[in-house]
Parts: sequence; C-alpha cells; structure tokens
Amino acid sequence: MDYVVIIPAAGQGKRMGAGKNKLLLTLEGIPVLIHTLRVFEADEACTGVILTIHPDDEQSFKELLGRYGITKIAALVHGGRERQDSVFNGLKAAPASEVILVHDAARPFIKKNTIRMLAEAALLDGAAIAAVPVKDTIKKAENLHVTETVERSSLWAVQTPQAFRVSVLREAHEQAEKDHFTGTDDSSLVERLGHKVAIIEGDYDNIKLTTPEDLYFAEAIMKKREIRPNKQ
Amino acid sequence: MDYVVIIPAAGQGKRMGAGKNKLLLTLEGIPVLIHTLRVFEADEACTGVILTIHPDDEQSFKELLGRYGITKIAALVHGGRERQDSVFNGLKAAPASEVILVHDAARPFIKKNTIRMLAEAALLDGAAIAAVPVKDTIKKAENLHVTETVERSSLWAVQTPQAFRVSVLREAHEQAEKDHFTGTDDSSLVERLGHKVAIIEGDYDNIKLTTPEDLYFAEAIMKKREIRPNKQ
Repeated sequence: MDYVVIIPAAGQGKRMGAGKNKLLLTLEGIPVLIHTLRVFEADEACTGVILTIHPDDEQSFKELLGRYGITKIAALVHGGRERQDSVFNGLKAAPASEVILVHDAARPFIKKNTIRMLAEAALLDGAAIAAVPVKDTIKKAENLHVTETVERSSLWAVQTPQAFRVSVLREAHEQAEKDHFTGTDDSSLVERLGHKVAIIEGDYDNIKLTTPEDLYFAEAIMKKREIRPNKQ
Repeated sequence: MDYVVIIPAAGQGKRMGAGKNKLLLTLEGIPVLIHTLRVFEADEACTGVILTIHPDDEQSFKELLGRYGITKIAALVHGGRERQDSVFNGLKAAPASEVILVHDAARPFIKKNTIRMLAEAALLDGAAIAAVPVKDTIKKAENLHVTETVERSSLWAVQTPQAFRVSVLREAHEQAEKDHFTGTDDSSLVERLGHKVAIIEGDYDNIKLTTPEDLYFAEAIMKKREIRPNKQ
C-alpha cells in the first residue's frame, strides 16, 4: 500500500533542554531527524515525505538532507503555530496519494512492518494508529490526591505513525479549523467526526525522544538492535 | 520518618521470558533484587525489610542475601497466590512501625528523597504513592477500535513505593480479603474505603523491569547515573 508521510519537525523540543532543536541531537553520530527519515527513505511503499519545519531551521535542515542523501522529500513546508497547524500545512502541500501517514520526527525506531499494517488498516477503516497496551497502573488525581484508579485493560498509549485515507484526514483538519478545536493528536480530530479509528499494536521500543533521559533509552535501543548505520 | 518496607518478590516474572526469576537477572553483574535491597540497606530511616518469596526461591535468595551482606531483612515470608496476598502476608509479619512501605522488587532505581517524602506524606494523609505525569496520549479502545481519547492532564502513571500508616494498610487489606476484592495496587485497596491517597511526584527513571527491553533501559539508567556498585 503506497503512502505519503507528513513529518512535523517545526517544534523546538524545549523539554529536551538541549539548547538546540532536539532533532539535531545525534545517536551514534547521526541526527535523530536523519534516523527517522532513513526509515521512510528505505521503505519502497513511501512515495514522498512532507517535512514541516521552523523557518529558522530551513538552511540547516536543507544542508543535512543533502549531506545524508535524503531523496524522498516531496515538500519542505513551514510549520504553523501548533503541531496541528503544521500537519494541516503539510497536508495541503502533499502530493496525490490515497493514504497519508503522520509521524513524529522524534520517533526514529518505527518498524516497516508496523507502517505497512497501518497503511492497510487506514485504507480499510479510514484511520489507524500505532499504540501499545498501557503497562502502568493509571490514576486520575486532583490537587495531588487520587480521585480514581482507571480500569487499565482497555487503555492504549498512542504513538505514531497515524495513517489516514487522505479524504478523512482533510475533512478532520478542515472541521477542526472551523471549530477552533485543538486535539492531542491527529486521530482525535477524526474521532470527533464519528469516524472509526483502528488500533495497530506497535512496539514499546518506538519511543518519542522528549526528555534528556530518552536519549539514554534511545542509545540502549540502538545497541539492542545492533543498528550500526554508516557514519558520514 | 522511620519506616518498614515490604518487598514482594514471590512473582515469577514470566513476562521477562528469561527462564528464571527476573529478579536474579543481573545489572552490571549484580542481581536486580540486590540493587533494590541496597537502596533500603543504605537508608538509615528504614528499620526493617520484609521480603515475600516463592518457596522455590528460598535457598537461592538466602544465599544471595548472605553473599551481598544484606542485614536489614526482618522477615522472609512465603508469598500468597497473588501479589496482594503476598503483601498481606508480609504485613502480618511486619515489626512495629507507624509507617510501612510497599515497593516492587523489580524497581531498583528508587531515590532516597522520594522515599522520604512518601513516608512523611503517609503519616500526614494516611497513604501516599509515587507517580509520574502520563506523557503519552491515552485512548480507550474496544475490539481494537478507539472509543475515547482520555483527558491526559489529570492522569498519573503509578509506581512504587506506596507508603501507608500501618493501621490504614491493615484495614484496607482486611476489608479486601473479606470482600474478595483484588486491586491493581495497594493504594486501590485504600481508595475504595474512601481514604485519602496523596501523590508524590516521582522520577521517570524509576522503571519496573518487566519485559526484556527494560533490561536495556535499566543498563542505560545505570550508565547515566554512573552507578558503579562494588562487584562481589
């Protein structure tokens, strides 16, 4: 199932506290952004990547894409005020495709097999998201006191990619803009229109690099997988 | 605030798939169980450890405790059918103390400062648990289709230690036994009686070693902390 992927990379990753865009931090000498792009570069079902960027990053990102020989960038699009705006901008710039994915630039460990299952499920159901069963006990609290232990068996921790029929994602973003609705993720925009969203069970390794300790986890995952990309 | 701690270690850790009790797996050459016990061994506020064990592990655990010079074991207690039964068994064997903690044997990275805050909050509120804000988007699903995106801002991922006034934990376990109620954790037994449970914000590093990849994460955390325990 061929697809196009939008990768929002316009955020600044402030929680990383790295003093620079977290996507430029390196794992085994290669920027996180490049690790992520290489997954799609290597997947023959991916027909194009739309990268949404902050204008300040344009020059350095272009230089990086050249240096690492990334060829599938269909469009470099300036991001909007929020991630959701950036994805919508990317969607408007996307080349024709029946299925479109949205994937976090800071999730370099996504597997090709998960991507394939997501694209297929999106075609069938309209929308499909990668998620893993919640392992922790989850509680609701107010003012740092527990109000409820949430029944865990039906809870999923959501990752990306999220995959959509293009028509479904476009309708969802257009309606969200009209309603001034901001969702936690793209599938929440689809859910509120009453559309189905399928879950594809992903992989606990598919972490999003958010906080400094995540870099240590990422290094551990790299080591485990014995990924040894060519350093340039 | 002095305290006694119950450490349930009677489970078999089947999800680890290691072919042996996961607590005997080593990090930097030292069993996970010993890493955890050393935290309490080194904390002067801890006046005793009740370790609940599977009868099959009794000899190997005793040998380990001797080899690593663990001195604070107040009682070795056989576990029950479920974790909750084991904790109750431990509670019955506990030496006198105003505050009692329950801590997972497979969480070696708990910090002394968190323990101190938990013990103090338990004395004040009756019960206190370590938890961290949920980072992921959480969805509810049925038959692998999303039914709801859960409002994340009030959600906490629960860890251990959980700390209690002894009288509160005893009442909670006695009532749960009478009612044949099984909770996801000890604090859920306290909540259902209408008692307050305070949240102490813990640390994302305080992971529970459950699946094989967690061992890689644990090694990364060890490295980050530059913990270099004396190997024996």
